[in-house]
Amino acid sequence: MDKKGLAFTHAQLRDIVSDYPTPFHIYDEQAIRENARRLLSAFGWCPGFKEFYAVKAAPNPYLLQILRDEGFGADCSSYAELTLSAAVGLKGENIMFSSNDTPAHEFQKAYELGAIINLDDISHLPFLEKTVGVPELISFRFNPGPKRTGNAIIGDPKEAKFGITHAQIVNAYDDARRRGAKRFGIHTMVVSNELQANYFVETARSLFALAIELQDRLDIRLEFANLGGGLGIPYQPEETPLCIEEISRAVEKLYEEMIVENDLHPLNIYLESGRFITGPYGYLVTTAVHKKDIYKQYVGVDACMAHLMRPGMYGAYHHITVAGKEDSPLDRVYDVTGSLCENNDKFAIDRQLPEIAVGDLLVIHDAGAHGHAMGFNYNGKLRCPELLLRPDGSVKIIRRGETLDDLFATLDYPGL
Amino acid sequence: MDKKGLAFTHAQLRDIVSDYPTPFHIYDEQAIRENARRLLSAFGWCPGFKEFYAVKAAPNPYLLQILRDEGFGADCSSYAELTLSAAVGLKGENIMFSSNDTPAHEFQKAYELGAIINLDDISHLPFLEKTVGVPELISFRFNPGPKRTGNAIIGDPKEAKFGITHAQIVNAYDDARRRGAKRFGIHTMVVSNELQANYFVETARSLFALAIELQDRLDIRLEFANLGGGLGIPYQPEETPLCIEEISRAVEKLYEEMIVENDLHPLNIYLESGRFITGPYGYLVTTAVHKKDIYKQYVGVDACMAHLMRPGMYGAYHHITVAGKEDSPLDRVYDVTGSLCENNDKFAIDRQLPEIAVGDLLVIHDAGAHGHAMGFNYNGKLRCPELLLRPDGSVKIIRRGETLDDLFATLDYPGL
Repeated sequence: MDKKGLAFTHAQLRDIVSDYPTPFHIYDEQAIRENARRLLSAFGWCPGFKEFYAVKAAPNPYLLQILRDEGFGADCSSYAELTLSAAVGLKGENIMFSSNDTPAHEFQKAYELGAIINLDDISHLPFLEKTVGVPELISFRFNPGPKRTGNAIIGDPKEAKFGITHAQIVNAYDDARRRGAKRFGIHTMVVSNELQANYFVETARSLFALAIELQDRLDIRLEFANLGGGLGIPYQPEETPLCIEEISRAVEKLYEEMIVENDLHPLNIYLESGRFITGPYGYLVTTAVHKKDIYKQYVGVDACMAHLMRPGMYGAYHHITVAGKEDSPLDRVYDVTGSLCENNDKFAIDRQLPEIAVGDLLVIHDAGAHGHAMGFNYNGKLRCPELLLRPDGSVKIIRRGETLDDLFATLDYPGL
Repeated sequence: MDKKGLAFTHAQLRDIVSDYPTPFHIYDEQAIRENARRLLSAFGWCPGFKEFYAVKAAPNPYLLQILRDEGFGADCSSYAELTLSAAVGLKGENIMFSSNDTPAHEFQKAYELGAIINLDDISHLPFLEKTVGVPELISFRFNPGPKRTGNAIIGDPKEAKFGITHAQIVNAYDDARRRGAKRFGIHTMVVSNELQANYFVETARSLFALAIELQDRLDIRLEFANLGGGLGIPYQPEETPLCIEEISRAVEKLYEEMIVENDLHPLNIYLESGRFITGPYGYLVTTAVHKKDIYKQYVGVDACMAHLMRPGMYGAYHHITVAGKEDSPLDRVYDVTGSLCENNDKFAIDRQLPEIAVGDLLVIHDAGAHGHAMGFNYNGKLRCPELLLRPDGSVKIIRRGETLDDLFATLDYPGL
């Protein structure tokens, strides 16, 4: 018995595949909208709450447009992401620009859009002043260093390239004010794909403490605390999903104790989740092309690492459902492989699955974030299309597949 | 004192950068040609020796053209790589098609080009027969399984998705002959980036033994033994480069003992190296953009993982030379970072380097294989140009950098 459900029936999927050959990514619009509403509802107690969707997770304008409709902003870290966000009508303080090692022209673009500029280092302030100008609203990314432990994915904060230290905080804001900033926020991000609610509550606690400190030491009143992203999703069916309402209640309690008590209300709470918003609602659909029986049993599919890097790159688990065989016993053990000429191009290793036949459709779950976005063209592989499953059951193509012309577009060579 | 030399002086590099802003990859044509000639000379004792350059390592037609000029063929594993090889004038048995999990249209393309088709599995033979037809010349990829140990990079052969087992070999060739094949070769590849000469000698021994076995058991006389790739390069300056002449001499000795003695001469020896051919002769050139002093010292550069994945993806070492500071003491310790919103976007961690100033040019070594080729567009990053440093010192652009138009080419969205 398969332990994860799909957004479509086997018959629906066969219909879709008859119009759109595999491999493709498909996103469930209804589920994304419902999830977005659930997040906003959970933080309903905080009037200035805003979620800035992490564009890098799924940089497709049709998905951004859905999230903008639901009231989300965009978290950008590059010129291209700023451009995408502007294209869907986001601007001003609906964009958070949290870059690092940032070139001047990217600051320029963020400044022109009126985005909230979140600085990664104290040295970026004079750089910004010299190249672009200091905006009225400035934020800094805080790196707690040895005070926090991070998690296995993002690593130890004191080894992380991001943000400024606690020792630098007071000088940073003081300097920003001297250089003309009038409004202030703060940001941090210490974990990635975390399923322990407590991490996020502790993040709120550390930013609220800094809000108090900045008020006390500089008489600077923060407008927002951006708790960053890092909300995890249960890639493994046995994992327990985060309860966003539980996190929100705990943050609210801290808000009362720390922010309201210290007369710092209102302080806007921001999040910049990507994975949590779209991750579970995107699927990579692929067809079994070959079976192979050597020292192990292999099922070769028509997708590869070019379409989903996480298993090959990180050894990440992505659940696989064999469409139409959801109720079959998982009595086979396969490696599910792509066609890259690299041995790490495997979607699953020693995975218990139902018996698979050539032609079966395999649905790879939780590909809705950091899936298509991380694709490459190694081995001359072409990135696949992205489809949107609309609430009415219709399907819209929201990104076409690449062609050889795309692959060779940057080459000027006779005969190509 | 820096321990690795460059193909250009600091003044030359400044000149190049004035025409081609960083970041870019630059390849040293003269060194590539000399290295190609050295390889061919080392195997001069074997009249049927051929090197099929692994196109995936650096799929640029201008580089393939140089290697074709030197007498190399191409090792392809995809439709796009076949297309590139054909574009530079390679065809017929100058192309080795060693794919796995292969779709029919890729076999078709290889068949039309007259490429040597190297099958990854016994099931691919009926698949090929049904979809394309069985060519006159057929090869199988051999996976030694528990008989060999592989190395740390490619992993344990019995866990590798590639090739057929020893138990399958006799049936495979017998079946191929029954289905119409008349000429035969064999292929294997059990290591990657290996610096121990003995691995390659043992590979030759195992293929020579199979040549004897196939002659004995099936009266099938192999035309070639393709020892695959896997020839490593010294990424670390302390590592000792492979002596290709030493490998060749040891293979020649085995050839005498096993092939000549058993009256199987001539047997062509093939290699399909990528990294060994171009790896050391490509450089990623990048400019220091920011310095940052938090819990550690950081130098932020204008290149990122999009331009060279190996350090971020595998933790691989790539040597860095600060141009113009080759003779300065290495008395600083930096993390050298790209601008991706991912903490693993680091070209070096805790690296001893000379003091770096913003504006310095950093040259990242050994990027001539699996460098540009593995780039992605994560975080909206654009892949950079590739340049060729000609033997006369001039520079030719052999791939332009990507633009936002390229990045958004597969999107049909108003305003993009």
